[in-house]
Amino acid sequence: MSAFASHDSATKQSAGNAITAEDIAGSGGKASEPVARYALRLGDDSLMLAQRLGWWISRAPELEEDIALGNIALDMVGHARFLLTYAGSAWGKTEDDLAYFREEEEFRSVRLVEQENGDFGQTIARQLLFSFYQYELYSALQSSQDQTLAAIADKAVKEVEYHQDHAAQWILRLGLGTEESKRRIEEGLYYMWPYLDELFADEPLHDELEGIAVRPSTLRENTMKRIEALLAEAELEVPKVTQARLSDSPRDGEYSEYRGYILAEMQYLARKHPGAKW
Amino acid sequence: MSAFASHDSATKQSAGNAITAEDIAGSGGKASEPVARYALRLGDDSLMLAQRLGWWISRAPELEEDIALGNIALDMVGHARFLLTYAGSAWGKTEDDLAYFREEEEFRSVRLVEQENGDFGQTIARQLLFSFYQYELYSALQSSQDQTLAAIADKAVKEVEYHQDHAAQWILRLGLGTEESKRRIEEGLYYMWPYLDELFADEPLHDELEGIAVRPSTLRENTMKRIEALLAEAELEVPKVTQARLSDSPRDGEYSEYRGYILAEMQYLARKHPGAKW
Repeated sequence: MSAFASHDSATKQSAGNAITAEDIAGSGGKASEPVARYALRLGDDSLMLAQRLGWWISRAPELEEDIALGNIALDMVGHARFLLTYAGSAWGKTEDDLAYFREEEEFRSVRLVEQENGDFGQTIARQLLFSFYQYELYSALQSSQDQTLAAIADKAVKEVEYHQDHAAQWILRLGLGTEESKRRIEEGLYYMWPYLDELFADEPLHDELEGIAVRPSTLRENTMKRIEALLAEAELEVPKVTQARLSDSPRDGEYSEYRGYILAEMQYLARKHPGAKW
Repeated sequence: MSAFASHDSATKQSAGNAITAEDIAGSGGKASEPVARYALRLGDDSLMLAQRLGWWISRAPELEEDIALGNIALDMVGHARFLLTYAGSAWGKTEDDLAYFREEEEFRSVRLVEQENGDFGQTIARQLLFSFYQYELYSALQSSQDQTLAAIADKAVKEVEYHQDHAAQWILRLGLGTEESKRRIEEGLYYMWPYLDELFADEPLHDELEGIAVRPSTLRENTMKRIEALLAEAELEVPKVTQARLSDSPRDGEYSEYRGYILAEMQYLARKHPGAKW
């Protein structure tokens, strides 16, 4: 946390924010161990996807799109900061400890968000699946009995609604566009589709957090109904492809071969100068 | 320009914007040839710096800093969009034509913004010099007789004020921090300092644009006075280093060896699928 945190400067948080990561860190509210493990799952998803999306700044097919994907990436870093700060309160760790000083096997993100950007179609396919899932997740989490999680969800869901809208607009544009754009989004969907099951996989942890965590399996029906309706509107077929294999607690044991590369980039500077107190 | 431009979605422009790039493109207001050449100079600076800064998303030494630098990068893309859209109006070109389909020698950016990120200290040194210069530039440009340039400056100066503040906070923090942080910001300043002269170099173009363009040499005194006062406060010395050599019209003829690499990344996707109409 920097001294710079005390004013808004370039972070441009919108007015009327319910919370900031600093508020969570400063409130003294401490997450229980299972709540922390849950928050870590959600935060790691956002952190990994942010890293993937940030790559697009100045590489998107249009300048306008640079700004859209860049803003989505920054929203995701923002959500990760809330969630990692809260998770860290259980273990006396900061958001930066958790982001920069965990090892590959200690992250809890789903494989979908770690998948490669590929071409723009592949990135948009990933955005579609994740933002539609996340919208349902945060909508439900707003009713959590854990007040901090509910407040984080309340803030995040408004931003994710835009992410969802952004993905939907592109799905329509690519699906109903040229032969080439249709082929590319179809390939992207085919590539990302096998990682859907993991989004909706219940884990033993969720049994410990009745009324606090959202049970992932309960999100599946609404999420898929809306994704399939959108694909129909975009004249795209639902990919017929086998789902990636899952263990009983997939977020604890399985991760993509890409995670190590993402972390190498993300953690390099902080680890090169540990405690340098930039 | 995408169909997606019609609503705000993830671009989060703050309320009460005077203008958008779409407004400029749609207004029918056409830049004269010299005004277009001037706008291109300013827009290219922002575009190059945005590309450099975007790299930091998920690579900064703190999560919070990811967001700050990411937002500064997105502000810069925003300014570039305004300026390139306006420049393009003189030649029947879009912002994307100018960003993605010009060759290396056709860009008009100063060498400072093309310099490598290096470590965090080097990036902050570049931010210091450029944001302090740009604050003076846009402050003066608000009084331009060209209404479009004045409106762009009016919007941009508010954002650059934050960039300047961000750089200043870091200069103080690094200069007054540890021995290591002081050494790094000193090295960064030493590296960036030789590119200052170019920021303040008048060109023949400015003679053609009396009352419209800001004469760069007029910005030097205020910019340097404020930079030097800040360095004194941070207990940092003004680097004693020779300035890079300049021609009579440096932006027309001289550029850094890095520009080609920046463009290779930036233009790759748009050029791979020209006219693909994503």
